[in-house]
Amino acid sequence: MHTASLIAVGTELLFGQVVNTNAAYISERLQLLGIGVLYHFTVGDNPARLKSTLARAAAESEIVITTGGLGPTQDDLTKELIAELTGRALVKDEEARRRLDEIMRAYGHKNFTENNLKQALLPEGAEAFYNEAGTAPGFALESGGNTFIALPGPPREMKEMMKRSVIPYLARKADAVIHSKVLRFYGIGESALETALLPVIDGQTDPTIATYAKEGECSIRISSMRRTAEEAEAALEAACAKVEELAGEYIFCEEDKDYPQVIVELLSEKGVRLAAAESCTGGLFAGAITSVPGSSDVLDRAFVVYSNEAKIECLGVSRKTIDSFGAVSEACAREMALGALAHSRADIAVAVTGIAGPGGATEEKPVGTVCFAVAGRGGECVTREKRFRDRGRRANRHVCVLELCSMIREYVLSSQER
Amino acid sequence: MHTASLIAVGTELLFGQVVNTNAAYISERLQLLGIGVLYHFTVGDNPARLKSTLARAAAESEIVITTGGLGPTQDDLTKELIAELTGRALVKDEEARRRLDEIMRAYGHKNFTENNLKQALLPEGAEAFYNEAGTAPGFALESGGNTFIALPGPPREMKEMMKRSVIPYLARKADAVIHSKVLRFYGIGESALETALLPVIDGQTDPTIATYAKEGECSIRISSMRRTAEEAEAALEAACAKVEELAGEYIFCEEDKDYPQVIVELLSEKGVRLAAAESCTGGLFAGAITSVPGSSDVLDRAFVVYSNEAKIECLGVSRKTIDSFGAVSEACAREMALGALAHSRADIAVAVTGIAGPGGATEEKPVGTVCFAVAGRGGECVTREKRFRDRGRRANRHVCVLELCSMIREYVLSSQER
Repeated sequence: MHTASLIAVGTELLFGQVVNTNAAYISERLQLLGIGVLYHFTVGDNPARLKSTLARAAAESEIVITTGGLGPTQDDLTKELIAELTGRALVKDEEARRRLDEIMRAYGHKNFTENNLKQALLPEGAEAFYNEAGTAPGFALESGGNTFIALPGPPREMKEMMKRSVIPYLARKADAVIHSKVLRFYGIGESALETALLPVIDGQTDPTIATYAKEGECSIRISSMRRTAEEAEAALEAACAKVEELAGEYIFCEEDKDYPQVIVELLSEKGVRLAAAESCTGGLFAGAITSVPGSSDVLDRAFVVYSNEAKIECLGVSRKTIDSFGAVSEACAREMALGALAHSRADIAVAVTGIAGPGGATEEKPVGTVCFAVAGRGGECVTREKRFRDRGRRANRHVCVLELCSMIREYVLSSQER
Repeated sequence: MHTASLIAVGTELLFGQVVNTNAAYISERLQLLGIGVLYHFTVGDNPARLKSTLARAAAESEIVITTGGLGPTQDDLTKELIAELTGRALVKDEEARRRLDEIMRAYGHKNFTENNLKQALLPEGAEAFYNEAGTAPGFALESGGNTFIALPGPPREMKEMMKRSVIPYLARKADAVIHSKVLRFYGIGESALETALLPVIDGQTDPTIATYAKEGECSIRISSMRRTAEEAEAALEAACAKVEELAGEYIFCEEDKDYPQVIVELLSEKGVRLAAAESCTGGLFAGAITSVPGSSDVLDRAFVVYSNEAKIECLGVSRKTIDSFGAVSEACAREMALGALAHSRADIAVAVTGIAGPGGATEEKPVGTVCFAVAGRGGECVTREKRFRDRGRRANRHVCVLELCSMIREYVLSSQER
């Protein structure tokens, strides 16, 4: 088992102006490569403290990964101190220089300042990692039993470099390639999913399966590290097939996409236009759908009908239904969905009415009681009442959005079968 | 200047399952007390590595603050190792015991397990910090020129303990009290705000003013550390008055509240009911308003009118207006707001139509072009066209929500004057 320590460099982190999200991202990825992370360190732009931290990290772990301090300014010292610690000179990397030239030209600068030139220098013997999302290159350097890996601080640049350069580099060192795949689940909790997947998780060393819980949903990452890409792909495929067998009914996407995006793509592909009538989610569902670029092809319109009057006047819900069953009832949800259909040009309409809390609960209808409906032009309407665990107003509303997505997906996929 | 190091304890952090947000929160608060943070460390539940990190942190800085590892399980070792390092015994804290008893009773457990009893133990001579948001108490311990402060890991518990116990403790050590206040701004960028506030920021040692930028808005925290609460309050008030003089027109709240919450409170107080017609924000505005508990008193209904047909059919926007001026025009926004008013029971209605990107832009109307309107029952309607800088679809839509809030606030406050 290899070991690693991470060092985040930047005074802004010690001021608390920026949260260090890089450490968690890198740690999770190293985990998949079978590398154990022993420490995260954060130091400011202080040469003495950064150097002693580099030395300590190198003494305690094989791999030392830094983020930040690769920029053009005098404060940026990571590269210089790694070179000093390993006794290497800084030498110009021609490709890094060429790329910097290109960027400068694109920005209309004619000549390099000495500061910018600094970014094209790398420790002698380092393998350059070119930056596809910014200017400063990173690198890997082997020295005295340690591997030093220096990455840029901005998360977007760091992530891109991790994917393109660091993971392949570390896999290559292990004489392997690593492939991984994310599956996303709705309707099953993390521990139930873990239990369901025990036959593929237990005792497996490759592929590995890691589960993650997000609000109201979960995902797994299946990773395989093998000698060839073909072997890794085959191992992933076999694991995927087993996962589908064990918990396939809960998978809503075999890529790392949010549920609203999955819905927009599904409806767009099927040419189905959507309308929505939202009470307790108050626009959140439509807001989530329209957060996806291209959703204008899919969402015709939505009605945020918070008050009973709005339900009656905008959608034609009958006062009698509200009086007899309450606004939080499958009967009301049904009329809302049918009303949204009647008052729009959509092919299908969804409705949601419930108690998001903290107020509004009754003995029979506690916080978390929510009624849903989906209706189509053929007159078919599916309704459902759910009692979600009360996770607080924000999370309660978020889960309603996921449930709406889930109902739409089921409805559209099953209509197709009809 | 005092110095501090922070140690986050927990293997879940090294696995990358949890992002360490505690470090940034604590660092920012220490900053206000004039305490410089030198290092953040993260270690797993490993006694040898945690102990050596505690020793190193204590050697390099005066104050050592840990988060995590205070719970009832065998893995939780922070307290034990601090006691070991400082040569203190762990002794039962009666008040901690009493509080644990109470919690156990509330959960229906009759007796303590030994594990739970462990949580009532503190190093001899420590000052207990009782946990108002969980079970494990924290503490401060002075030893050999160092102050060790141990806090629970869950951010909610940690924050509560920072506010109630740690900040007063550190201020008391400095023979002082610290008071602070947050003001929130919209319509001015962070650097412009800093420039405007230079007369109160420059050369000021107390109160200190720190600025923070959030998407489309900014905030400042004014802090005063003085010998008495009265002095601190007086200093805050004087600084506030100067800030209001210099940039008061951009302040939307003199507390740390989001803009939608400010709007719900304002409308609720004035008894004004709201309707909304949303095109480019697609429900996000209504979703933000209804995220505030009690918003049902304020939001009557909202129309998400993404397509031109929806604008025409739901709100009575004239096709001629759309043909002549386009759907992204002040004329269309005006008709949308008046239509929302006509089709609701609201006292005022807002409308927004714009180009959120990435698609939909034209030469005259680039991404970020957005038209807004607010209309009231008296027939008065204010419209506005904005050209926001393109910050990406998500952020572009978020800024539209803030601008809607800003227009409502202006409209309601100025109607009052009329």
